[in-house]
Amino acid sequence: MSDEQAHAPNRLERRKQRTRAALIRAAQTFIADGRLNAPILEITQAADIGLGSFYNHFESREELFAAAVAEVLDAQGELLDHLTAQITDPAERFVCRYRLCGRFFRRQPQESRIMLSIGPALLSSDRGLAPRAKRDILAAAEAGRFTVDDPDVALAVAGGALLGLGQLLFAQPDRDDAQTTDDVAAHVLRTLGMTGRQIHALVSRPLPDLTSIDL
Amino acid sequence: MSDEQAHAPNRLERRKQRTRAALIRAAQTFIADGRLNAPILEITQAADIGLGSFYNHFESREELFAAAVAEVLDAQGELLDHLTAQITDPAERFVCRYRLCGRFFRRQPQESRIMLSIGPALLSSDRGLAPRAKRDILAAAEAGRFTVDDPDVALAVAGGALLGLGQLLFAQPDRDDAQTTDDVAAHVLRTLGMTGRQIHALVSRPLPDLTSIDL
Repeated sequence: MSDEQAHAPNRLERRKQRTRAALIRAAQTFIADGRLNAPILEITQAADIGLGSFYNHFESREELFAAAVAEVLDAQGELLDHLTAQITDPAERFVCRYRLCGRFFRRQPQESRIMLSIGPALLSSDRGLAPRAKRDILAAAEAGRFTVDDPDVALAVAGGALLGLGQLLFAQPDRDDAQTTDDVAAHVLRTLGMTGRQIHALVSRPLPDLTSIDL
Repeated sequence: MSDEQAHAPNRLERRKQRTRAALIRAAQTFIADGRLNAPILEITQAADIGLGSFYNHFESREELFAAAVAEVLDAQGELLDHLTAQITDPAERFVCRYRLCGRFFRRQPQESRIMLSIGPALLSSDRGLAPRAKRDILAAAEAGRFTVDDPDVALAVAGGALLGLGQLLFAQPDRDDAQTTDDVAAHVLRTLGMTGRQIHALVSRPLPDLTSIDL
């Protein structure tokens, strides 16, 4: 018997994973709709599982919702890492990830609503864009590309501006998301001490092709 | 009978106003705690009024919560107008209001939690700081004090950064709120096209005395 067979989940484990995934998906819908206080019974009904099964997976609604948000942020983080894997300059990686996130708002409407619903608390999360942005900001400052006195303030400004961008794109559905994202990215780069010429070069770079990505 | 007597609310009207105010105060506590889906019964119990009375004032929980948020934003807006009434330069008024709002986060913890709970949606509100900031940005751009290509983008960046600031002050309770606020304000002024010298002058101005204000 190979190692892989030995570790293949058996039928019971697969069913448990399916139930957990159904709960997470249902929770994501509730969060996207801003229904953060929905009764557990309603969530299990939406997931089409029994109420009792819930407690095999999570101790509380809060624990489920936290897992549902973490999953969205982890998926976004992994996608960003994948799309920017070739970029070695931290400043360029920061801008590229920022410009991609702005473009995700319209392409991933449910994830976008989840992010706006969670709001500023996202900026303190150790998942998703925030920790990546902080690493890039610190590395770019060390490399002399950004001028940063207080990395936490820089992250608050950059991350807050991204939430403001998401809200603007949500409130004005006809607004060009790519152009607006690049405008916001330019504003943020200016606060990070870059000059107009450097900013223009960075926000004009071609982005990874998103059409081939299953969003 | 004087005009004032004729228009003085009678006992029934005063009781109605007290009930409405109790519902609004209870709703503000629920919003601050992030309990946006709390049952109406729980809210009326917290307000110490009967469930039936609720529907004399509001048609739904959403209507009550919207009124509760609007009241917080209107109160903040009026306080900001009062505190900045003497300032004629729109750029200076913008910065002064921004620096005051940053300082309100710690001085008004419940209102602060309400704002972070509502999150980016605040930036599209026609109450509170957002409409005042937009007016100031437009006037300052017209007066040649700010360089603004797209006022909505400028507002998204400035307002988003303020939410990021609120979250940072919440996540790091030992951080100096005045210094951090002025740092964020400086970042925002830079995105509005101001030079280092102009920024330093604006964020160093003495602020209205807040100790005399009943926050």
